[in-house]
Amino acid sequence: MTVWLVGAGPGDPGLLTVRGLELIRGCDALVYDVLVAPELVDEAPDDALVIPREDVGQAELNELLVELSRQGLEVVRLKGGDPFVFGRGSEEAEALAAAGISFEVVPGVSALSAVPASAGIPLTHRGLSAQVTLVSGHSASGADLDFAHLARTPGTLVVFMGLAHLSAIAGGLISAGKSPSTPAAVVSRGTHTDGRSVAGALHEIARLAAELTSPALLVVGEVVAVGNRLARPLARAVSSS
Amino acid sequence: MTVWLVGAGPGDPGLLTVRGLELIRGCDALVYDVLVAPELVDEAPDDALVIPREDVGQAELNELLVELSRQGLEVVRLKGGDPFVFGRGSEEAEALAAAGISFEVVPGVSALSAVPASAGIPLTHRGLSAQVTLVSGHSASGADLDFAHLARTPGTLVVFMGLAHLSAIAGGLISAGKSPSTPAAVVSRGTHTDGRSVAGALHEIARLAAELTSPALLVVGEVVAVGNRLARPLARAVSSS
Repeated sequence: MTVWLVGAGPGDPGLLTVRGLELIRGCDALVYDVLVAPELVDEAPDDALVIPREDVGQAELNELLVELSRQGLEVVRLKGGDPFVFGRGSEEAEALAAAGISFEVVPGVSALSAVPASAGIPLTHRGLSAQVTLVSGHSASGADLDFAHLARTPGTLVVFMGLAHLSAIAGGLISAGKSPSTPAAVVSRGTHTDGRSVAGALHEIARLAAELTSPALLVVGEVVAVGNRLARPLARAVSSS
Repeated sequence: MTVWLVGAGPGDPGLLTVRGLELIRGCDALVYDVLVAPELVDEAPDDALVIPREDVGQAELNELLVELSRQGLEVVRLKGGDPFVFGRGSEEAEALAAAGISFEVVPGVSALSAVPASAGIPLTHRGLSAQVTLVSGHSASGADLDFAHLARTPGTLVVFMGLAHLSAIAGGLISAGKSPSTPAAVVSRGTHTDGRSVAGALHEIARLAAELTSPALLVVGEVVAVGNRLARPLARAVSSS
C-alpha cells in the first residue's frame, strides 16, 4: 500500500496532472486540503474514505496517513499546488519514511508560475528577468525576510501568502533600497474563475490590493510590465483594475 | 481560433495537466519541443498537423504560430516544463498578442520542483529552507551569474541547464564565500524512467556528476540532506551514486 502525495495544482481543476487524476479515481482514502477544488474531491470513488484536512495539526495529520496506510488502504494525500513547494509535503514524506510506509510524490503545477500566468505575467522574460526568487510572506512582519538582501536581488520576486503583510513587505523592500516605482502585481485566487489582479508601482501596491482576498500572491519585477501587455487577450483573463 | 501555449511538464507524460491533454486531443495543429515525451505527441488527432520544433529560430517559430492560427486552425504549442519559466513562452505570447491572435497559457509542472522531487528533494523544508532561487546556467561561464550575491542568498538554489558549466558554477559560488561543504545534487533526466541523480558536497559535485547527461538541474542547499533521507522509499526513485 502506498501513500501518494499529490499536488492538486493552483486552483483550476483542469490543472491537476493526468497521473494525479488517475490516482484519485483509484484510491481507497482521500485526505485533502480544504482549498483544493471540490471537483477533484468528487473524482474519488463513491466508496472511498474522503477526509478534509481541517483543524488538524501536522503531527496528527502525519499519524492519520500512517494509520490509513497500515489499514491496507491506497491513500491519496491531495495538497494545494505542489507538495514540495511551501506545502510541508516533505514533512509528511519524512513521517511516512520513518514509519516504513511506501510513498510517492506526484508533483503538481505550483502557484508560483500558474498564478502570475493567469494575469499574463511570466516569471522570466528575455532581457528583463533571468532569475526567480520565491519566499513566503506568511509571517513576514519584517523579522523573517531579509529585505536588505531581497532589495538587491535581480529578476522576479514572488511572495506566497503575502496579502496580510503586503504593506510591511512593500515598505520593507523600499526602505532597503528597492525603487518605489518597481512594477508589482497582486493576483488573488489566480486560475480560479473569480480570480482578480491589480498591478501598479511597488509603493502603491498595498493600497491597490486592499480589496483582494486570500489566497493571493505578490509579484515584484519588470515582468509585471509584460503582464500588462499580455493580460487582455487571455481567454480566462482575470479582471485588472 | 486560439493558440494554446501548453506546458508539457518535466518529462514523465503522466505529469501533463488534464486540460493540456484535452487540448492536444482536440487540436488541429501541434507544434512541440523535441524534448517533450513522444507519448504526448501521439495524443494528437490522426489528421492533425504535427510539427516538431527543430532548427527553427524563435522569430520563425512565432511566425509559424501566427500563420497556423490565421489558417483557422486550433493550435497547441506544447513546451517542456512550464511555458512561463525559462521557456520563452512569453515571447511567443507577445508575438501572438502583437498579431491580434487569441491565445491562452496553460501552465505545466515545472522541472523546478518536479525534478528535485524525483530524487526526494523538496524545495522548502521547515527549519531548513524558506526561500527558493532559480537561475539558468545556460551560458554561465561566470559573467551572467552574480556569484557574490547568490553565495549569500539563503534557502535553496536551483540552476537550470547548469551541467555544461557545473564546475564553473560550483567554483564561482565557493570563491564567493559559499561553504564548500554545502549539500548539492545534480538530477539528470528527472521524472523520466532513466533518471539519475548524484548528491554530495558542493566542492565535489562537478566531479560526481561527470557521467550525467542533459537535461539536468543543480540543487544547492540543506534540502539535499532531506532528499538523502527520502530518496530510498520513492516508488520511482532515481538511482543515486
